[in-house]
Amino acid sequence: MSEALAAGCADAVTADLAAAVKDADLIVLCVPVGAMAGLAAKIAPVISRECVVTDVGSVKGSVLAELRPIFRERGRFVGSHPMAGSEHTGLAAARANLFDHTRCIVTPEPDTDAAALATVCDFWQGIGCRVIELPAAEHDECVALISHLPHLVAAALVNTVAARNEHAFRVVGPGFRDTTRVASGPPALWREILRENSAAVLPAIDALIAELAEFRQTLAHPGDGRQADEMHELLAAARTARDRITFPK
Amino acid sequence: MSEALAAGCADAVTADLAAAVKDADLIVLCVPVGAMAGLAAKIAPVISRECVVTDVGSVKGSVLAELRPIFRERGRFVGSHPMAGSEHTGLAAARANLFDHTRCIVTPEPDTDAAALATVCDFWQGIGCRVIELPAAEHDECVALISHLPHLVAAALVNTVAARNEHAFRVVGPGFRDTTRVASGPPALWREILRENSAAVLPAIDALIAELAEFRQTLAHPGDGRQADEMHELLAAARTARDRITFPK
Repeated sequence: MSEALAAGCADAVTADLAAAVKDADLIVLCVPVGAMAGLAAKIAPVISRECVVTDVGSVKGSVLAELRPIFRERGRFVGSHPMAGSEHTGLAAARANLFDHTRCIVTPEPDTDAAALATVCDFWQGIGCRVIELPAAEHDECVALISHLPHLVAAALVNTVAARNEHAFRVVGPGFRDTTRVASGPPALWREILRENSAAVLPAIDALIAELAEFRQTLAHPGDGRQADEMHELLAAARTARDRITFPK
Repeated sequence: MSEALAAGCADAVTADLAAAVKDADLIVLCVPVGAMAGLAAKIAPVISRECVVTDVGSVKGSVLAELRPIFRERGRFVGSHPMAGSEHTGLAAARANLFDHTRCIVTPEPDTDAAALATVCDFWQGIGCRVIELPAAEHDECVALISHLPHLVAAALVNTVAARNEHAFRVVGPGFRDTTRVASGPPALWREILRENSAAVLPAIDALIAELAEFRQTLAHPGDGRQADEMHELLAAARTARDRITFPK
């Protein structure tokens, strides 16, 4: 804690949970999704009725299902998922510009307090995010595809290379470095995320395996004059789709 | 061509192939692997007997099989594969420091001329590469794992997201950007590379699909008390293996 103070990351720090939250106007819960409900249950009796609470969980359906009842009587809850961060953790990985130009998904429900929603959106915009509002279920399907599935794929890629020929790691270039970067993220955190969002992740894995099988099939059957064109079509479709994406920064 | 001159990328440029190569001490063939043999056959009759020839093809077994006979009588051939470059092509993507701290794999055969090998290694080291010597077959297996498979995976990921929910592209973060970066590479070039190295790429795809199926299985069967540990083990193995890799730069 003294480290965070010394680094200028916080104006005040405390290990006393009740003292930390009791006069807060806005609370941002930053613990793994599996620990969110336990923490929420501890602070709910202590906070003011008007206190706005949000979180940074990578899964929103399950977090909302757990937290909304907890904050029904005290506090006003709005789910958030800032799409920032890196594979590194801890105070040493903190950066003042971490949120610049990143996206933050906010997941209001039909009964979400409009003023609380505005407070949360203002908060994220104030630290540099572009806010996108999405229903929680849509959020979970989207992040299964663009975050959770890529994480699994990166880990599976590393494991595959390690199993088949570890010497290959000696000759890696920037392509492998970037393709697998997220696999250096903390396993305990990702295990939680994947479990919480398994309903959306499982069909995403199935779809990717089917797509890989199509690439395989196309590559395995040359000589019919079509193979080169089919592979070109698959690769060109990916390039075209990717080049249309507007990436942060 | 005048563009390359104006940019200071070349001292001289010409579209006359014979004039370009006839007095050369070292020739670096930089065309797609599928075009390599045709180009080699054109220059072989024109170059000096002692001329050292290398290439930058991403596949080495097939290139060596085609080019070594062509340069048996004239020229001394040594295969190379600089692990540099990006998803961008053309003169506008040129960078003076492109090769700094990258790896270049050089693939001598038992009968490779030692002086020619030294010339090629000196050339790559002179422009900033670290040279690694590998047999061509070992090279092809390694790059299938750390370059060709990741390329397929990146393309398959983009196609999967596009097919399932294009809205997901709106919320991508740096993870998806990096995991799929190589999918923006030129389809025609990659189609050639994959075809030339399909013998090594096909089993690599099979191994990755099997690994993904294991992740899927682990995620799909919670509740037996082991699932969380098994997923943690898969993710932790990947993280440990990746964190041991020394990446260029």
